[in-house]
Amino acid sequence: MKNALFGLIVGLLVWNAVDGRAADMPVSEATAECLDCHALINPGIVKDWRNSRHAKITPKQALAVDGLARKVSSKNIPENLQNSPVGCAECHTLRPGAHAGTFEHNGYDIHVVVSPKDCATCHSTEAEQYSKNLMANAYDNLDANKLFRKLQLSINGRKEFKDGKIIYHPANDDTKAETCYYCHGTKLKVTGTEVRDTDLAGELEFPIIEGWPNQGVGRVNLDGSLGSCAACHTRHAFSIEMARKPYTCKECHVGPDVPAFKVYAASKHGNIYSAMNKSWDFGAVPWTIGRDFTAPTCAACHISLLVNTDEEVVSERTHRMNNRLPWRIFGLVYAHPHPQDPDTSIIRNKDGQPLPTSLDGDFAAQYLIDEKEMGVRRITMQAACLNCHGSSWVKGQWQRFENTIRQTNADIAIATAIMRDIWQKGLADMDANPFDEAIEKKWTDAWQFYANTTRFASAMGCGGDYGVYADGRYQLTQALLEMNDWRLLQEKVAANSK
Amino acid sequence: MKNALFGLIVGLLVWNAVDGRAADMPVSEATAECLDCHALINPGIVKDWRNSRHAKITPKQALAVDGLARKVSSKNIPENLQNSPVGCAECHTLRPGAHAGTFEHNGYDIHVVVSPKDCATCHSTEAEQYSKNLMANAYDNLDANKLFRKLQLSINGRKEFKDGKIIYHPANDDTKAETCYYCHGTKLKVTGTEVRDTDLAGELEFPIIEGWPNQGVGRVNLDGSLGSCAACHTRHAFSIEMARKPYTCKECHVGPDVPAFKVYAASKHGNIYSAMNKSWDFGAVPWTIGRDFTAPTCAACHISLLVNTDEEVVSERTHRMNNRLPWRIFGLVYAHPHPQDPDTSIIRNKDGQPLPTSLDGDFAAQYLIDEKEMGVRRITMQAACLNCHGSSWVKGQWQRFENTIRQTNADIAIATAIMRDIWQKGLADMDANPFDEAIEKKWTDAWQFYANTTRFASAMGCGGDYGVYADGRYQLTQALLEMNDWRLLQEKVAANSK
Amino acid sequence: MKNALFGLIVGLLVWNAVDGRAADMPVSEATAECLDCHALINPGIVKDWRNSRHAKITPKQALAVDGLARKVSSKNIPENLQNSPVGCAECHTLRPGAHAGTFEHNGYDIHVVVSPKDCATCHSTEAEQYSKNLMANAYDNLDANKLFRKLQLSINGRKEFKDGKIIYHPANDDTKAETCYYCHGTKLKVTGTEVRDTDLAGELEFPIIEGWPNQGVGRVNLDGSLGSCAACHTRHAFSIEMARKPYTCKECHVGPDVPAFKVYAASKHGNIYSAMNKSWDFGAVPWTIGRDFTAPTCAACHISLLVNTDEEVVSERTHRMNNRLPWRIFGLVYAHPHPQDPDTSIIRNKDGQPLPTSLDGDFAAQYLIDEKEMGVRRITMQAACLNCHGSSWVKGQWQRFENTIRQTNADIAIATAIMRDIWQKGLADMDANPFDEAIEKKWTDAWQFYANTTRFASAMGCGGDYGVYADGRYQLTQALLEMNDWRLLQEKVAANSK
Repeated sequence: MKNALFGLIVGLLVWNAVDGRAADMPVSEATAECLDCHALINPGIVKDWRNSRHAKITPKQALAVDGLARKVSSKNIPENLQNSPVGCAECHTLRPGAHAGTFEHNGYDIHVVVSPKDCATCHSTEAEQYSKNLMANAYDNLDANKLFRKLQLSINGRKEFKDGKIIYHPANDDTKAETCYYCHGTKLKVTGTEVRDTDLAGELEFPIIEGWPNQGVGRVNLDGSLGSCAACHTRHAFSIEMARKPYTCKECHVGPDVPAFKVYAASKHGNIYSAMNKSWDFGAVPWTIGRDFTAPTCAACHISLLVNTDEEVVSERTHRMNNRLPWRIFGLVYAHPHPQDPDTSIIRNKDGQPLPTSLDGDFAAQYLIDEKEMGVRRITMQAACLNCHGSSWVKGQWQRFENTIRQTNADIAIATAIMRDIWQKGLADMDANPFDEAIEKKWTDAWQFYANTTRFASAMGCGGDYGVYADGRYQLTQALLEMNDWRLLQEKVAANSK
Repeated sequence: MKNALFGLIVGLLVWNAVDGRAADMPVSEATAECLDCHALINPGIVKDWRNSRHAKITPKQALAVDGLARKVSSKNIPENLQNSPVGCAECHTLRPGAHAGTFEHNGYDIHVVVSPKDCATCHSTEAEQYSKNLMANAYDNLDANKLFRKLQLSINGRKEFKDGKIIYHPANDDTKAETCYYCHGTKLKVTGTEVRDTDLAGELEFPIIEGWPNQGVGRVNLDGSLGSCAACHTRHAFSIEMARKPYTCKECHVGPDVPAFKVYAASKHGNIYSAMNKSWDFGAVPWTIGRDFTAPTCAACHISLLVNTDEEVVSERTHRMNNRLPWRIFGLVYAHPHPQDPDTSIIRNKDGQPLPTSLDGDFAAQYLIDEKEMGVRRITMQAACLNCHGSSWVKGQWQRFENTIRQTNADIAIATAIMRDIWQKGLADMDANPFDEAIEKKWTDAWQFYANTTRFASAMGCGGDYGVYADGRYQLTQALLEMNDWRLLQEKVAANSK
Repeated sequence: MKNALFGLIVGLLVWNAVDGRAADMPVSEATAECLDCHALINPGIVKDWRNSRHAKITPKQALAVDGLARKVSSKNIPENLQNSPVGCAECHTLRPGAHAGTFEHNGYDIHVVVSPKDCATCHSTEAEQYSKNLMANAYDNLDANKLFRKLQLSINGRKEFKDGKIIYHPANDDTKAETCYYCHGTKLKVTGTEVRDTDLAGELEFPIIEGWPNQGVGRVNLDGSLGSCAACHTRHAFSIEMARKPYTCKECHVGPDVPAFKVYAASKHGNIYSAMNKSWDFGAVPWTIGRDFTAPTCAACHISLLVNTDEEVVSERTHRMNNRLPWRIFGLVYAHPHPQDPDTSIIRNKDGQPLPTSLDGDFAAQYLIDEKEMGVRRITMQAACLNCHGSSWVKGQWQRFENTIRQTNADIAIATAIMRDIWQKGLADMDANPFDEAIEKKWTDAWQFYANTTRFASAMGCGGDYGVYADGRYQLTQALLEMNDWRLLQEKVAANSK
């Protein structure tokens, strides 16, 4: 009889999950008004939201969850928000005075761009951690750095062919918004209003927002806050499953400069994920190693709250993503200990350049974390590894990783020595822009693509292809050889010309 | 009690789906004869077909479906075909007189290569639309274009190293069939017959078909029709699920010349697809935004019949794939408005070359769609976007896309100016073949790989990696610089030689 | 009533599968002791094992399976191992005297590194076959080959920039272990012991193992055996599902030198796999074409025991992976018939070099399989194809494949002729190392990346992108042109310098 009951319950659960016809939870009056129109004109996102946790639980219920399973970190959620699910109006009418561009819409003060400070109403700890993340500062970390502006210009600048030379003019806003700032985030600004003729309500006035659309990690919002939670917690499903799967990170971490996804997908961990994840539980909080999943995704190593099968905490949840990272392997120009401050535009190397290392490779140590902090972060990271690997395995893996950091930095020191010789001999011009000539791009290839890829392959235990033949050591060596080859040929030709 | 019933029904449904032991539908006498042998010798495809819709419904039943859910578009399906499921004989004995190479086989007149005109028996609208598709003409669009034949020769030609130079001889048919014409389609031709000794029926005679096997989109068939429905509707499952998933398009759209799949997979849409599609309904017709799927696949934007949750049509089904495309971003040499006629071999630019733009970038406007038609197609495409995005979002995205078309075309104008200078100075030879020297390949890299990739990244809102560092603007700029670097060096060396 | 029963059974099956709370099988006393601690400290792998077949069946039960479904090939499994599931102790205490580094641990003689000879206790046929596999010899096939050691040095060597030249010093062990030997396998060696402070048992002594961790296919183990079954049968789940999915092979076969995964994923077979595999049965032994799966994965073509729907054997299981491969398309420097002996370091070409062909492309025939054996292997491979494809299809595909081998070999002959001219004119130095200069790397690109990729694309019927524009014939031709361009320029500059 008990078995019969199970059969029925399972049948019903399956039926509900597949069909989704379970009764919707009642929403606030304001959200109901939003839905009156928007369920018709934007059914896609409304349906996404309907299927989301936000639509299925009230903050009060969320607050009542005890222990590690609790998903809201704020202790004091305003009373008036506690008893309805988190719908359209709950987010888009929050803090109306704080957002430039808030506009009257059907009797409500609405803002288009929901910001981390809005999300902090319920998720204060995550918002606080994220604000200390390099990513939150990704706009100014790029835009307020003179050298990186030159790097940008040499990539997305509008080009002109004049007097036999290629010269660069600043990229326009549309180009900038879909290149570097697509991931780094744009700076939003209200530039006016416009009246649009709508299907359901005739003429309505809306703000015009420069830099929109954008969901970059360091977006400068209309309330002055930094970041977009939707970069990873895709609107309007806000699915923890999606955030924990590696495709979210892939949106920004797949190119040769930062090939994290490609390397992961070719690693043993990536293999296990790809083959077996269909039977994993991506929604469980906390996330139990071995039971909910059997190999890490990006989120498992870098963000999520992990516990072991005895419910002991293995890794605390963090939204300051470098909490578990001693090294910054994304070379600028060299790999280096992580910056102390999430605002990297303040860093100056010994030569006064806004870089975390000198061009010789010396660390700008006063701006970077020290050995002790590096040790703490290493141990934090390794705590997860040890749930599946013995300590000699983990030690061996880490030793190889730090060896690779040293070796690739040494290779880049050679590339830079060749480049400096080229600059000194006047075969290229460093002062105007060290990134905008053909030979300078070859040098950039070496550190931004090949040294980076080699380090990612090492970090994730995927030495095989990405560490050797797929933008790895083979290409790194080749770039050095080609730089030197170019140098020697140019010198010979110059000598012949005399 | 109702619940108990649900449990049972669900249990049985699950059981049937997993086990597949549901009784097979009776087939026609002819198909039964095919199956007698071929179920033994080709069990893979027979099983695929057994699981397909073709095996589970008769045309009569399909015709009885009302409204948008109807999958057959022909109004008059021959009476004799209406009452059996669509099995082996139904397709492979259709229109025997129309196909060269029809042969007697076990008392039936059989043809090996089923063509779009065969499929049109039930799917006439789709076949008609497809015939107006650039893809249907992909064979001649390549083969009847003098310049593109030179491009082919410079890639897959048989090479000889003679007198210190690399010279090209035409590729043989085997090479051609597995390179360009693998996707574009081969030209099939019956060249004779051969007797083969078969396991089950001893010696049998079969036609010899030149160009076989092939499933390219513009295959020239033995009945003179163009295309292969199996390119996307993989034989013999003809699964709508497979056609709607992006891996089908990936078969031809993944290389650096047309990296649609790679760009999609790294986009927000691709992320949502990859993470969540296991719970989508890929078989529903029409396809309901938000309910059946929550982010577009290739098919959703370009082909499928989409409705909103109120069952209103958002996008009409089309098999003329550029119905929703104002711009052709696959640069030849520049991005340009789509050709009016699917036969692009008729196009001549202002200089008489068979290209949709001049080498300066001027559009061959009389052969291309006009602004008005471009506007219609833009609106058709955007109709789907608006189900999840506000109008300012869509407008902003489109503005950036058209900006990128202008900017990349401007970059290619510079690349071409450098190339022309090189040609004019005799450092390379345009007349013999503008694609077959090292420096000409660098120029080709610029437009065929880097400008194209940049535009695909823009079109699909994936500006991050593919728009910058992964065959994007970084490499586009680099190609321009390296071309100019080469030019200057060659000039210096030539001057020294005097 | 029968239906009601089905509902219940299915419900329960679903419940068990999802929840996994089914009672664990009792383990041996020794394994129980292992689990006492390791279930706490390594819950990830313990859980993996708990879900594995090893934990759910005893060798005695496995031996009782009749016919093709039997998974253990050894006839005589020691009596003392037959009655408990295969747990920690069953593998890690096997043959203690045979393994260097066996250590006393909680009263048991334990070895860390389980080897193929351990696995052979139950899986003797597979271990025997694997020992005849090129892969088992992957360490020495690389390390004992003088030329390949030079190739390694030119990639992962420690570089120095001295007197305007880049010179190479041998890579250290950490670099070697995570580059070539990551996939090829390291040579393990016990170098001493160390005492570690453990959470649960205080200070304990462990062996220090040089070359650890590693799971490369040709690992030299501490018992002298070669290989790591865990390379493909990922510890500790040993999931046949994982081994049969293509992500396992991708771990080592994704780079431009051997892009098997990338090519497969873009092929028709890969499309079918990606779109439909969620409903396939990856655990069935034997594996039935059409019923369990409808398109091949890597394992299906190269390894697995395949049957048709009449339970007739289509392909015997093999762990000597080249049993079905006449050609070795991974060019060294040219594609060639497969070596006879899995130890390729014994091969000498006509010029005495340790290569399977001469630099002209002549096969070192006495070391390679002959025409007859090639024919046998071709037929063995094609047996699987014919379950879904007609014989003219298979013949046509194979004809194109062998044509591509000839054409790409011819292209590499041109590349090598140019390279030889460069060597002879003293513009590069072959004798010191034929792989370590910029122009030599361009030559290496041609054969190791572009000719290989072109052949993989041909072999797997994915001519489109990888055969043309994605590291295919386009780039192969480009490399030849750039080599010749470089040669001519260097000659001119040298002439000017006189």
